[in-house]
Amino acid sequence: MFQNFTPNAAPEVGGERLDMLRREIRKEELDGFLVPSADPWLGSGQGPADRRLAWMTGFTGSAGLLIVLGETAQLFVDGRYTVQAGLEADSNLFTVVSHDFDRIIACLAAGDDRGTARLIGYDPWLHSRSWIENLVEKITSLARNCCLCPCDNLVDRIWTDRPVRPRYPMRPYPVNRAGRSSWDKRNSIAEKLRVKGCRNALVTRPDSIAWLLNTRGSDIERTPVTLAFAVIGENGAVDLFMQEEVADESLKAHLGSEVTIHPPASLDGFLESLPGPVMVDPARTPDRLFRRVIDSGATVVRARDPIVLAKAVKNETELKGIEAAHRRDGIAFAEFLSWLADVPRDQTLSEIDLVRKLESCRRATGELKDIAFDTICGSGPNGAIIHYRVTESSNRRLNDNDVVVIDSGGQYEDGTTDITRTLVFGTPSEHVILAYTLVLKGMIAMSRLRWPGGGIAGCHIDAIARVPLWGSGMDYGHGTGHGVGAYLDVHEGPHAISRRSDVPLEAGMIVSNEPGFYRKNRFGIRIENLLAVRRWESGSAEREMLEFRTLTLAPLEHRLIDSSLLDRDEIEWLDSYHETVFETLSPHCTPKTAAWLDCACRKITRVEPAAI
Amino acid sequence: MFQNFTPNAAPEVGGERLDMLRREIRKEELDGFLVPSADPWLGSGQGPADRRLAWMTGFTGSAGLLIVLGETAQLFVDGRYTVQAGLEADSNLFTVVSHDFDRIIACLAAGDDRGTARLIGYDPWLHSRSWIENLVEKITSLARNCCLCPCDNLVDRIWTDRPVRPRYPMRPYPVNRAGRSSWDKRNSIAEKLRVKGCRNALVTRPDSIAWLLNTRGSDIERTPVTLAFAVIGENGAVDLFMQEEVADESLKAHLGSEVTIHPPASLDGFLESLPGPVMVDPARTPDRLFRRVIDSGATVVRARDPIVLAKAVKNETELKGIEAAHRRDGIAFAEFLSWLADVPRDQTLSEIDLVRKLESCRRATGELKDIAFDTICGSGPNGAIIHYRVTESSNRRLNDNDVVVIDSGGQYEDGTTDITRTLVFGTPSEHVILAYTLVLKGMIAMSRLRWPGGGIAGCHIDAIARVPLWGSGMDYGHGTGHGVGAYLDVHEGPHAISRRSDVPLEAGMIVSNEPGFYRKNRFGIRIENLLAVRRWESGSAEREMLEFRTLTLAPLEHRLIDSSLLDRDEIEWLDSYHETVFETLSPHCTPKTAAWLDCACRKITRVEPAAI
Repeated sequence: MFQNFTPNAAPEVGGERLDMLRREIRKEELDGFLVPSADPWLGSGQGPADRRLAWMTGFTGSAGLLIVLGETAQLFVDGRYTVQAGLEADSNLFTVVSHDFDRIIACLAAGDDRGTARLIGYDPWLHSRSWIENLVEKITSLARNCCLCPCDNLVDRIWTDRPVRPRYPMRPYPVNRAGRSSWDKRNSIAEKLRVKGCRNALVTRPDSIAWLLNTRGSDIERTPVTLAFAVIGENGAVDLFMQEEVADESLKAHLGSEVTIHPPASLDGFLESLPGPVMVDPARTPDRLFRRVIDSGATVVRARDPIVLAKAVKNETELKGIEAAHRRDGIAFAEFLSWLADVPRDQTLSEIDLVRKLESCRRATGELKDIAFDTICGSGPNGAIIHYRVTESSNRRLNDNDVVVIDSGGQYEDGTTDITRTLVFGTPSEHVILAYTLVLKGMIAMSRLRWPGGGIAGCHIDAIARVPLWGSGMDYGHGTGHGVGAYLDVHEGPHAISRRSDVPLEAGMIVSNEPGFYRKNRFGIRIENLLAVRRWESGSAEREMLEFRTLTLAPLEHRLIDSSLLDRDEIEWLDSYHETVFETLSPHCTPKTAAWLDCACRKITRVEPAAI
Repeated sequence: MFQNFTPNAAPEVGGERLDMLRREIRKEELDGFLVPSADPWLGSGQGPADRRLAWMTGFTGSAGLLIVLGETAQLFVDGRYTVQAGLEADSNLFTVVSHDFDRIIACLAAGDDRGTARLIGYDPWLHSRSWIENLVEKITSLARNCCLCPCDNLVDRIWTDRPVRPRYPMRPYPVNRAGRSSWDKRNSIAEKLRVKGCRNALVTRPDSIAWLLNTRGSDIERTPVTLAFAVIGENGAVDLFMQEEVADESLKAHLGSEVTIHPPASLDGFLESLPGPVMVDPARTPDRLFRRVIDSGATVVRARDPIVLAKAVKNETELKGIEAAHRRDGIAFAEFLSWLADVPRDQTLSEIDLVRKLESCRRATGELKDIAFDTICGSGPNGAIIHYRVTESSNRRLNDNDVVVIDSGGQYEDGTTDITRTLVFGTPSEHVILAYTLVLKGMIAMSRLRWPGGGIAGCHIDAIARVPLWGSGMDYGHGTGHGVGAYLDVHEGPHAISRRSDVPLEAGMIVSNEPGFYRKNRFGIRIENLLAVRRWESGSAEREMLEFRTLTLAPLEHRLIDSSLLDRDEIEWLDSYHETVFETLSPHCTPKTAAWLDCACRKITRVEPAAI
């Protein structure tokens, strides 16, 4: 279960595989085929059996789309991955294009001046209904001569040694962790269905199922869920579609009589006879399943999975667990940092050494179930690769003045953590110190933010973490933060701190706060704390106000802070944060680490700025 | 043309008028009637002939909706007007409800449990197509038994002495002010139509017509436009619907042969035979005209008036004119402020005295065409009425410690201004000083903002002006800023600094920056400068960056600033702003005013805060 560092793709054979795939495309009398980075659950992570994009191209990022046509093969990746894709995929075979809907259209619809329509095949299990609909609608509106045809997965035909999807037991998740019984949760969701006049809802998100049934699983790495589909009815009863063998007697007892387990293969027939109106989330439902519901003739009510918002608002029990997880994780991280500070300078370390040590510090807690995602440890230029995953081939030994970004997290039975710190060895350059301080100012501004409840969403506040960078003509190419699950997916909706998120923030939501700065081929900087939204209890407030409570406990890098750029309030925040970190963690650390913490959490010595 | 202060409504006769209207409602066999604050151009201001809402209720605000039913009469107003409506309308007759779409639905659809459908009449000239559609859609989705029926305006039947809409000449607006010829503008808009595959576009906004044809008018107070409708074709030719007599020979020569004037009555027939596809903006087109286009059978392309965005991005000539207008207006405002500072304390002034004096200072420039809107001069409790308009009956004499909000602007041939300053007589309370300083901090943060070009809209930055207030549990119930026209409407779209505005900001746009704070029945605070978006020319910037340039020139109130709450950068901004104000204005002021300016623009003496 330790993170592995073998390149999980073989770019050198990309040419051969591309030829084979093109042969299959011609065999089907198609003009092209779509290879997304996706499994039928359309989440962010995929198991080995579903890493088709990596197998084809060598690109190992968690999001991307390969469009293979007769002559061209374009690899679409978003801002996080442009650098990485360029490094991992063979540029003679694959053109890396930054992900943009119009560019995808242009690629698909190019050269459509031929009389005959161009036929593009896709696997309807691996694309959401709404994505397919948008694509078709846009192509039609442009009067392009291009059709999308659902078909078998052509990659699976040529990927002869493709692993099978493993199936691990689904485990009960105790109510003393979940804070609410599954019965209670199912009734509240059923009530939502009745309000919307729906008789059933299709649940396609594994983490929604895990939350609803108070279960956890191990079907994919890093996220403790079981890959299943479910249907919940207006009476709260649930039909669960997964391999029978993953459910032992204790689980069946836990699920109770209102939850019926069906073999996955029976889902098609079940949907075709499902009484409507049926609530379906087109954004997270495979085109294939959506078609089944339509075929049944039932009325389809398009709405976001009703579980998602309920799951995002943590209850008191979950919040207590999450805080405990962060204390535990903070101790492990402090041990890691103090070890690192103590490594003799003549002994050079590699990125992999750091990842291994950090994971072993987390394991030493005896509570780690899994890491929350493959640790991102990018030194020097690798730090500029936002979602860098170190492999034996990319591994760098740390040089003396390297800046190192370490983004990591743990899955504990009581909560999920996600923390990023940027460290430096030796003497950082002025440019690095400026960038780090500006990123820190944005991170502090978000941490200190208070706002009126009701209506303020991530899109309204994302800029607040960017203002200091913007003032110097700098920015970062990702959102400021994402929701985080409670011993579930480390990336969880519906909310986010992002220009695209219009879901109002509510007390009980967890969100990351991770501004950064990236200088391509030079270095990367990112600072991340998790925050919990809570009511601000203040006599002075004239209305209901919300604020963030910082959950993450780890010192920030003094050597990268130019305190002359910080104002009073920022220094006050830093000092009191460091005080909290020290007082919470040091009693539980080794003496050596406690001593190191004492120094790492010292007050900021303010360099008085030049007078105005 | 001087602002008048007579209450332009008679609440005391509301009961009688309500009875008459209900009689007409019954006569038509309706169950209710909608009385909006609107004319067929659906803009913010209405002429006397269209102030039906004020005539019925006594409420004089620029936006509101009265729903008259058999038993009830509910007056819906937005956050700006709740206080004012409560004061102006007779609460025994009219229930003031804060404007909310669901509340309107609830009101219309209440008591629909009767078998028969409830019939609500409305004047299709006075409601936009999209508003009517939203209403109908919502009512239908709720399966409510309520129908909306277009009909004659029932208020016009009982308003026997209703004034007629006056018609003033349409004047040419010289190209040396507009910066572009009408021919050039018409071709660029025609190009937009061709790109969208439209043969014609219906233009319903008077300011769009004024911009397109380089004309100005005087049909409504405060906004120099002619109330007309127009159609522009894919070839750039324009059909203009307005009274022939408002066009003299010089105007006809200016318009040229590609612009044809038609009598307004011919619009119906013209639309019914208009070749499609026709671009229509449902948000700003009266339901009545939209129906005509549909009746014609032509394809309707729903899109925002293509002129709006083009008009919002000012060209170099317009920007030069706007800057000149702000210098001129700043001098007038400085003369006003120095006069006010000099009034012997024993001589008490009223709100109306201030409004008269300010307008006369602007007139003294010899360049004032009109004020940009009725000056808002709210002292003490009146300052908390966001869109307060002083009348003889509401007029207050200023007491010694009153806080006074003065929001005013001028229409000059070369530009439109809009400025708000908050002044204090005597000694302000600590609470007032705190509130003013927090508002000022937000105003400065917005003024100093720099951001990457392309995609950042008002909804992303509105919060930046609120953060300091939010930090103390305070806020304001309006957007932070609105677009401003070039010698056109002082409120101009499509952009705004508001949670609801998703139109990206572009270089050349003008926007107001006016955070505030309002303590009901106590005082109001607002500070407003106009800003121009421009490219930030900076070597250091790694991408195209935008910034604001402040246009408004007037000192801020030292006595209301707690400098211990300001950080270095804020004080630097204030000092350099005041330096610019002094150096730009003082050479053109009277010696007395120049001396006053010298003091009003002095550097901030920084009170050193308590050490951390």
